[in-house]
Amino acid sequence: MERIPILKVEDFLLVTVQVDMHDRLAQTLQEDLADGIMKHRSRGVLIDISGLGVVDSFIGRMLGMIAGVAHILDAETVLVGMQPAVAITLVELGLSLPGIRTALNVDRGMQLLRLSLTGMGEPGDDHREDD
Amino acid sequence: MERIPILKVEDFLLVTVQVDMHDRLAQTLQEDLADGIMKHRSRGVLIDISGLGVVDSFIGRMLGMIAGVAHILDAETVLVGMQPAVAITLVELGLSLPGIRTALNVDRGMQLLRLSLTGMGEPGDDHREDD
Repeated sequence: MERIPILKVEDFLLVTVQVDMHDRLAQTLQEDLADGIMKHRSRGVLIDISGLGVVDSFIGRMLGMIAGVAHILDAETVLVGMQPAVAITLVELGLSLPGIRTALNVDRGMQLLRLSLTGMGEPGDDHREDD
Repeated sequence: MERIPILKVEDFLLVTVQVDMHDRLAQTLQEDLADGIMKHRSRGVLIDISGLGVVDSFIGRMLGMIAGVAHILDAETVLVGMQPAVAITLVELGLSLPGIRTALNVDRGMQLLRLSLTGMGEPGDDHREDD
């Protein structure tokens, strides 16, 4: 596989990471996402990692870079679908994914982006809403 | 990778197929989707294949089976994001994906499902709406 597909869902871009990242794939994803943000004038990017059983420092850095690029292009990035075991490992390893917001799933992530874009939520807010 | 993640987006389930399908993965996807339809009471399933450069008769059959299972569980399946080259090859090979509806992208697929579920579109309709 040469690239990870980027889906436009309403006003946002959605990426599902299913395979182990390597340098080149991460680079391509970053470029494709930047192109997608410009093309669709998206203000939000959702990255679903529910398919990943492991998130190491490389993936953490890669996600941070994607969020950084999106931010410069005036789009927010929300990481969704993290498996509980992954969250536990991240905390144990001291990887705090700085600059990346997270949400439980795609629906919550879209809610968070909408709130944030309408100015009702500030970046850095703690979002825990019950269904 | 042992399974393809299934995302809940609003009332629908969204699957992005990025890797080459094999028997076991297809079987797991079919079971997970059936579980997801029950769990989330979903009425629609979107399968994005924009990441696939090739759709052969095995994948076609697999998609048909997934659509069949979903149909029995009272959910509709829409195939989205097919690459133009894939569409051309399918027609050339005479694989018409019977029983599967298609849409250009996720947004159009969701539109199609919504129309269909509110009774404004009938299964089998030819949907080509301009943006």
